[in-house]
Amino acid sequence: MAGRVDILNGPNLNLLGKREPHLYGSETLADVEKSCQALAGELGLAIRFLQSNAEHQLVDWIQRAREEADAIIINPAAYSHTSVAILDALKAFDGPVIEVHISNIHQRESFRHHSYVSLRADGVIAGCGTQGYHLALMRVARLLTSAG
Amino acid sequence: MAGRVDILNGPNLNLLGKREPHLYGSETLADVEKSCQALAGELGLAIRFLQSNAEHQLVDWIQRAREEADAIIINPAAYSHTSVAILDALKAFDGPVIEVHISNIHQRESFRHHSYVSLRADGVIAGCGTQGYHLALMRVARLLTSAG
Amino acid sequence: MAGRVDILNGPNLNLLGKREPHLYGSETLADVEKSCQALAGELGLAIRFLQSNAEHQLVDWIQRAREEADAIIINPAAYSHTSVAILDALKAFDGPVIEVHISNIHQRESFRHHSYVSLRADGVIAGCGTQGYHLALMRVARLLTSAG
Amino acid sequence: MAGRVDILNGPNLNLLGKREPHLYGSETLADVEKSCQALAGELGLAIRFLQSNAEHQLVDWIQRAREEADAIIINPAAYSHTSVAILDALKAFDGPVIEVHISNIHQRESFRHHSYVSLRADGVIAGCGTQGYHLALMRVARLLTSAG
Amino acid sequence: MAGRVDILNGPNLNLLGKREPHLYGSETLADVEKSCQALAGELGLAIRFLQSNAEHQLVDWIQRAREEADAIIINPAAYSHTSVAILDALKAFDGPVIEVHISNIHQRESFRHHSYVSLRADGVIAGCGTQGYHLALMRVARLLTSAG
Amino acid sequence: MAGRVDILNGPNLNLLGKREPHLYGSETLADVEKSCQALAGELGLAIRFLQSNAEHQLVDWIQRAREEADAIIINPAAYSHTSVAILDALKAFDGPVIEVHISNIHQRESFRHHSYVSLRADGVIAGCGTQGYHLALMRVARLLTSAG
Amino acid sequence: MAGRVDILNGPNLNLLGKREPHLYGSETLADVEKSCQALAGELGLAIRFLQSNAEHQLVDWIQRAREEADAIIINPAAYSHTSVAILDALKAFDGPVIEVHISNIHQRESFRHHSYVSLRADGVIAGCGTQGYHLALMRVARLLTSAG
Amino acid sequence: MAGRVDILNGPNLNLLGKREPHLYGSETLADVEKSCQALAGELGLAIRFLQSNAEHQLVDWIQRAREEADAIIINPAAYSHTSVAILDALKAFDGPVIEVHISNIHQRESFRHHSYVSLRADGVIAGCGTQGYHLALMRVARLLTSAG
Amino acid sequence: MAGRVDILNGPNLNLLGKREPHLYGSETLADVEKSCQALAGELGLAIRFLQSNAEHQLVDWIQRAREEADAIIINPAAYSHTSVAILDALKAFDGPVIEVHISNIHQRESFRHHSYVSLRADGVIAGCGTQGYHLALMRVARLLTSAG
Amino acid sequence: MAGRVDILNGPNLNLLGKREPHLYGSETLADVEKSCQALAGELGLAIRFLQSNAEHQLVDWIQRAREEADAIIINPAAYSHTSVAILDALKAFDGPVIEVHISNIHQRESFRHHSYVSLRADGVIAGCGTQGYHLALMRVARLLTSAG
Amino acid sequence: MAGRVDILNGPNLNLLGKREPHLYGSETLADVEKSCQALAGELGLAIRFLQSNAEHQLVDWIQRAREEADAIIINPAAYSHTSVAILDALKAFDGPVIEVHISNIHQRESFRHHSYVSLRADGVIAGCGTQGYHLALMRVARLLTSAG
Amino acid sequence: MAGRVDILNGPNLNLLGKREPHLYGSETLADVEKSCQALAGELGLAIRFLQSNAEHQLVDWIQRAREEADAIIINPAAYSHTSVAILDALKAFDGPVIEVHISNIHQRESFRHHSYVSLRADGVIAGCGTQGYHLALMRVARLLTSAG
Repeated sequence: MAGRVDILNGPNLNLLGKREPHLYGSETLADVEKSCQALAGELGLAIRFLQSNAEHQLVDWIQRAREEADAIIINPAAYSHTSVAILDALKAFDGPVIEVHISNIHQRESFRHHSYVSLRADGVIAGCGTQGYHLALMRVARLLTSAG
Repeated sequence: MAGRVDILNGPNLNLLGKREPHLYGSETLADVEKSCQALAGELGLAIRFLQSNAEHQLVDWIQRAREEADAIIINPAAYSHTSVAILDALKAFDGPVIEVHISNIHQRESFRHHSYVSLRADGVIAGCGTQGYHLALMRVARLLTSAG
Repeated sequence: MAGRVDILNGPNLNLLGKREPHLYGSETLADVEKSCQALAGELGLAIRFLQSNAEHQLVDWIQRAREEADAIIINPAAYSHTSVAILDALKAFDGPVIEVHISNIHQRESFRHHSYVSLRADGVIAGCGTQGYHLALMRVARLLTSAG
Repeated sequence: MAGRVDILNGPNLNLLGKREPHLYGSETLADVEKSCQALAGELGLAIRFLQSNAEHQLVDWIQRAREEADAIIINPAAYSHTSVAILDALKAFDGPVIEVHISNIHQRESFRHHSYVSLRADGVIAGCGTQGYHLALMRVARLLTSAG
Repeated sequence: MAGRVDILNGPNLNLLGKREPHLYGSETLADVEKSCQALAGELGLAIRFLQSNAEHQLVDWIQRAREEADAIIINPAAYSHTSVAILDALKAFDGPVIEVHISNIHQRESFRHHSYVSLRADGVIAGCGTQGYHLALMRVARLLTSAG
Repeated sequence: MAGRVDILNGPNLNLLGKREPHLYGSETLADVEKSCQALAGELGLAIRFLQSNAEHQLVDWIQRAREEADAIIINPAAYSHTSVAILDALKAFDGPVIEVHISNIHQRESFRHHSYVSLRADGVIAGCGTQGYHLALMRVARLLTSAG
Repeated sequence: MAGRVDILNGPNLNLLGKREPHLYGSETLADVEKSCQALAGELGLAIRFLQSNAEHQLVDWIQRAREEADAIIINPAAYSHTSVAILDALKAFDGPVIEVHISNIHQRESFRHHSYVSLRADGVIAGCGTQGYHLALMRVARLLTSAG
Repeated sequence: MAGRVDILNGPNLNLLGKREPHLYGSETLADVEKSCQALAGELGLAIRFLQSNAEHQLVDWIQRAREEADAIIINPAAYSHTSVAILDALKAFDGPVIEVHISNIHQRESFRHHSYVSLRADGVIAGCGTQGYHLALMRVARLLTSAG
Repeated sequence: MAGRVDILNGPNLNLLGKREPHLYGSETLADVEKSCQALAGELGLAIRFLQSNAEHQLVDWIQRAREEADAIIINPAAYSHTSVAILDALKAFDGPVIEVHISNIHQRESFRHHSYVSLRADGVIAGCGTQGYHLALMRVARLLTSAG
Repeated sequence: MAGRVDILNGPNLNLLGKREPHLYGSETLADVEKSCQALAGELGLAIRFLQSNAEHQLVDWIQRAREEADAIIINPAAYSHTSVAILDALKAFDGPVIEVHISNIHQRESFRHHSYVSLRADGVIAGCGTQGYHLALMRVARLLTSAG
Repeated sequence: MAGRVDILNGPNLNLLGKREPHLYGSETLADVEKSCQALAGELGLAIRFLQSNAEHQLVDWIQRAREEADAIIINPAAYSHTSVAILDALKAFDGPVIEVHISNIHQRESFRHHSYVSLRADGVIAGCGTQGYHLALMRVARLLTSAG
Repeated sequence: MAGRVDILNGPNLNLLGKREPHLYGSETLADVEKSCQALAGELGLAIRFLQSNAEHQLVDWIQRAREEADAIIINPAAYSHTSVAILDALKAFDGPVIEVHISNIHQRESFRHHSYVSLRADGVIAGCGTQGYHLALMRVARLLTSAG
């Protein structure tokens, strides 16, 4: 197997497909997980797909990933803009980190233009809808197997 | 065929693979074009791969794309941060626009954190190396064939 | 019954009446709950009165309110100024939202002048002491029964 | 009688119900005065309901209130954001001051987010429509009779 | 007749031709009124030419224009930069609004670079001397008779 | 006689001696006028001592001073910080202008640190209590009779 | 003949009438040129009507105008906000310069509120649609024949 | 015994000695606790040494300290820069509060230069490595026994 | 005798009358001292008139004034804008402090608009030429003998 | 002996114990020196305890320390916030530097929140009263003998 | 020969000696080239002296210099302040880069105070008139032959 | 002789060649003086080469230069960024002033990007190492003998 990937989702993403569809589309998070599992299988990756509304839960999962994962894909949602704690946890993780935003945050309120997570992430994918998760998986697959 | 895509590259990208390899890697732009052509073939897309150091040339190409392309992938390089003219040209284009940056611009000088192009782009992919072009092509393929 | 209202209280409000009485008065949160229950009865509203020091708990309660409440009254306390997660949860709630601050936040430290919650709240009541909760209930009663 | 209250309205509020109904509703200022008179009667308050487009007229009325009123309710409208003179007049008034905004000013242009009047007001009620005047009257009634 | 136009002049414009001639020229406001009357006659417009040093007087005139004028030409002078009240009055006016500045405000002190009135005006003409009034009349004539 | 001086007082100064005595002292404006008259007599100056809460009244008085006064002493109070109209009127006045503030505005709220009037005033005297008017008169006497 | 006028148009104005009609209307640049030619004839002016997407082309044309034109009318479009080079070229031109914007730039994104060209232009006309060119021609005619 | 001290550690400090050793050294948090216990014994203090990644847990512990501790030593880590909730909890605590940072936060990213906790802390010790905890204990010992 | 006053002059004031006469006039510092001595005699004050280019010398003199003077008049010149050390020394002085600037600093470069000394000075006199020293002496005389 | 330490004190610290006791306590600088000598003896350190109001004197002492000291403890007082010269001198010193502030500068005026010295200091101790010097000595002792 | 040097001149420098002589003097660019050729001969340098109004032309020349020159002297004129593209091209050049400005840009408009080119240039020479080119050549000669 | 030149060096430059050699090189200030003397001889200039860590000493030397020198070359080092006193002294000097920085200050910390001295200097030479002094001498020689 090419590697283990933790896909972490931040606050309110459990509502995906249920709120503000003009921004986030109509797919649910379960749909996203399913399609990610399928793609991960093709890519030879084992994924763990998680969501939490709690900042500390995300910190804990990132810390655990130090032992149990080779890469992290994270959609930090609201915590992108406010959480130094998540940034610090990611800085303690050595593998590739890809940040995903379903919408294009640069076209929303100005406080969404800055992401603490981007200060650590290797790659950032925004505005590609839920397909952004797939693109992130492909990026991770490449990074775990070759130069990048 | 699923669609025609113009892939536009901004100033100094003709030096790709020759300067600052810690930021941009060692692949040349010709290498990128070749791999994009291959992937486009698989995706049923016809691409036109272009580079210019001139802002007005990029504006002209974007304007031409109104007639001759269904989507634009653009790596505006330095002009991301300074060109309202390119933004305005893109606003006159109706199809999908994906912005690509090879490096993660959020970890570089602060004047690179803001991109005028992001104000129009549907998706933004940064820090995924030259693979970012491939991810953009996959996004475009999806947008030209289905919901997104 | 005119409607169900969740009254949510943020961090440190469990100390109400015990700290900084010049800012917050000497009534406890239990006193406030009791007087709100009484007024809600008169107004034909069913209220659920909750307090948490945890941002994610408030997010969870707001999400639950999508199914179980017709309106939200929220005193986000410190999270007013720092939580995009709570803002996002509130944006996914369709009913009326009234924001309450016991003190007049505009006369305190400058970082308390901005509230993320105000970007979603329909009404904001500040500096009316614990009576602010009663005023909010009256506003909610009006919004749930008539034009507003 | 519990007290005398001057209710002061700033510029363009004489157009209430006639302009921008999505922001201000369709009630006229005369309607608001009538409903305030009714509520004041119930609360044992004597009100004087005034409107002016002139900053100096509002200053004069506030100065007069030093002798002739026990509390002030003020909707300073545009002058909220530009008048230090009104702030200074209010600072010379000893009784309770409640500031009312019909719309939620925090969701409008950024220059409306700051109110000089809030630097003196005891309470601020925004975004509760014309009911905001009623809530302010109830707050004043409480402040004039008891602890607050 | 093509329409009625109120031409409103703000503070200190009664000194036109008498102060700072390097900025404002030597024509008086009476001269400007006379030439505007002549041009209005040619254009089939009836004009009312007014000046006041008082912010509230300008607000009152703008409110009256809702009933008695089809368009407003306004040189708000100093109030351009400080009056939200005038902006709000103009927002309640439905017809065309053209803002005139005799000098080029962008070459003067930085506090003159921002105009609240420009947030509502359809057109802005600056630095064209007193001819700016004539140009504004021609613009209004066009807007009242055709597409614009 | 050495000259005619208009001493202009802005909003809320009619309350002098009645409000915030820790900032402004206990002398009334009538007291100040009386002592200024006495000193003016000694200095051979004829003074006109005026107060208004209205910005436009101050503008009108400054315009009139162009014909009827040789110098202006002005305590613009709140309008120091907000009135470009008064600044513009003063710019059209050719004689000496001395600005007086009873309190030291640099030790108060930050919005009081900037005065538009200071951009035109020849001299500024702050924090010298009501004696500031006397110092201003002495300065004016000097300027009207000699080099300065 | 009263004078020679170069009318210069910046990037993307060749798309006039084809993009964002709510901002720019449906007339094409050829239509504008035709109506300008007609008006110029009446005014005794000889015009040269040019458009380019290239900053350096505009600089070259402005430099040439030093020898071959008596006045410049310029709609710098996107380069208004980003080109110091065009500003510098205009500073080397001695005749009248009138800046035209079809839309009211003060009601658009904040980066469009500042124009480098306004630092040199004698007059600025914005938000008057394509009629703005006509108004500019009339202004130029006046400046080339009389006081202004 | 001289007093009870709660030593609270914020997010990611459980990784101490395991991440970014150039910033934080190689000692683990358990090592720090042990050496603090030893020093506390010498100083006659009883300590409770705690760590959490959760903001609310830290708030809860601070609230509990109101009853069960005489002083607080806190290394808020990432929450220094983002948590008003922790600041508010500390404001409700009456005893001495000493803030500790292992690294010198003033030499790191600019968002680490501001600490909400410093607005309440009596003393701040930064950049003294894990010895900072010992210095804080000595400060607390002094404050609990004498003048300070 | 009514009191002892130290009149302290900052850097480059020894050049008074020799540099930039449009700003500072043609009187020398010796002239100023002489006229101050004369006035002080009339007012019953004993003055010590000092100048230094050295920040520390001014600090030393202010510290000495704690023992040897009843009031300080200070023209800090360039150090107004840069010296916290002088501010701190003045905060340790209990008597009246009057700050004098010969020119009106509010009309000069923006870095001269802020004065650290104004944060402690009781009164500030600017733009009154060298007469400002006399006005300051009169203010000091009043403060040392009566209410102020 | 473990090492030589220069303890440098900036402007106005010679007044310690004599000014603003609520900020700085009642101990004099001589008291501090005495207690530091005692502690240094215990720690095996030789100290030189110096104070100056002059920036250049502090620069000279820091330069001398390059030859004659192993570590520097510095309380730069006012110069913390204004002296790049002291920062540059410290950058030329290779040993440990500990910065001490008696009060908590983060709770004072905003211009005291930034310290140039902190950009070079290894450790910063603020708000621990004069005990801060002792804590700094202990830190230095550790750094001169072991890892840190 | 000691080396090859490309001397690149930005927009509007072709007008040198013809515009704004108070800023730029009366020498033409041809004069400068001639004197540079003479000096280069003495220094054993071969120079290529070029000017363009086009940003992309400057980028192209800088890229070509990677192969054909040992050092670059560049007067970027207006592009100093706006061109990230030129900065990026220079970052891809390995030899010495000296930036020349004929006038002292620090005494002109604030937008001329920042130069992107300075972020890469080894040396910057401003305000030395056209002699600045000679000084730059001497610097380059030194760098190409010795330590620097 | 062509003229007398004072070459003034600011704080810490006496350490030249001894600190931070990657920024300042290994030449000492004595070496620089020697080479300057040699070059000055060739140019027919008499130089006085001085260094001080004291701001007031530099002010004194600049004042003395008014009588004893024809030009000033100054490397203000740290005082570039903080000393208005030196700027004011230079403004009182009539001859040419050239500012020298050994390193390129635009690539260092942001507080080094602004120089008060540049507001008066005729020319600024930065990043040319100690050769910058030679270039400055050549510039001065030209200015003292011809047009510049």
